[in-house]
Amino acid sequence: MKILALSGSLRVVSINTALLRAAARLAPQDMSITVFSGIGDLPLFNLDDEDCPAYIVTDFRSRVAEADALLFASPEYAHGVTGAIKNALDWLVGFEPFANKLVAVLNASPRAYHADDALRETLRTMAAVIVDAASITIPLLGAKLDEDGMVSTPGVARSIQEALAALHHAVGLHKTSSNPSFPLR
Amino acid sequence: MKILALSGSLRVVSINTALLRAAARLAPQDMSITVFSGIGDLPLFNLDDEDCPAYIVTDFRSRVAEADALLFASPEYAHGVTGAIKNALDWLVGFEPFANKLVAVLNASPRAYHADDALRETLRTMAAVIVDAASITIPLLGAKLDEDGMVSTPGVARSIQEALAALHHAVGLHKTSSNPSFPLR
Repeated sequence: MKILALSGSLRVVSINTALLRAAARLAPQDMSITVFSGIGDLPLFNLDDEDCPAYIVTDFRSRVAEADALLFASPEYAHGVTGAIKNALDWLVGFEPFANKLVAVLNASPRAYHADDALRETLRTMAAVIVDAASITIPLLGAKLDEDGMVSTPGVARSIQEALAALHHAVGLHKTSSNPSFPLR
Repeated sequence: MKILALSGSLRVVSINTALLRAAARLAPQDMSITVFSGIGDLPLFNLDDEDCPAYIVTDFRSRVAEADALLFASPEYAHGVTGAIKNALDWLVGFEPFANKLVAVLNASPRAYHADDALRETLRTMAAVIVDAASITIPLLGAKLDEDGMVSTPGVARSIQEALAALHHAVGLHKTSSNPSFPLR
């Protein structure tokens, strides 16, 4: 089971990227979570280039297509999504394999509901399937936890593991429903 | 009176960029509107680089600081702001001269209220002063008008001119209130 994780922050010490890295370490044994490192290298989306984009966009799209689900964690800047995460999504709007993709949205700050709402609205509009039980708020801001701290703090680690278990379950169901064993005529 | 215009689309034939160019041609005589051409060249925002950004970011910030007001026109992608316009704003969140800046938000599509609302929410959060009378919806999508068409279509041109007149009025009032002629003690 392959999960592609997308962080909306480019900071080296981003709490959102740390959350995704912690999730990668806490994932169930048959779930592999890869944090995509190229968000900051994507060009700004231009509809003129949608059908013939730079190589890194093609690579990004391939990773999205191959993933069983996407896992988001993105901060809020000025009551909005970050330009970085929205730009990544803009490149996927017209990308057919994104439709019907399972996604989970982690939120590291309970106060940051504007960006969380906007991100979910965009994902729904793009026909992604949001796994609600896996899309949880983990109050990390102010907790001063890094990746190691998240993994070793029982309450935080348990929340992450429960979210991943819900995502795991949803992927299992989704695969069954997407690949029916009876012949379709 | 200097207005910096920011388009959220990088398309060559963008209706939003055309709208801003049309506005530049329809502006009152003492109002100069410059469409910023560097939105697509800004790097993706990284909080780590906020205080020591690339030259183009410094240039962009200088233009913003020098402008009496900003004029936005930005499309909606998947019920959200474009990554390009949000990324430009992300670079201005911590930029002190942006606070108290007059802004007008033109919307070329009446149906696109998600992005319009989100852009306004972000601008308010950044302490910009939205000039409501200048922030109008001009139903251009589907009208197939280019820049010349907007300038030469009386109903469209009049709407743009009324918005610019309202912005002109607001800048006049703002300058008076920002530079009081009586001594402050």
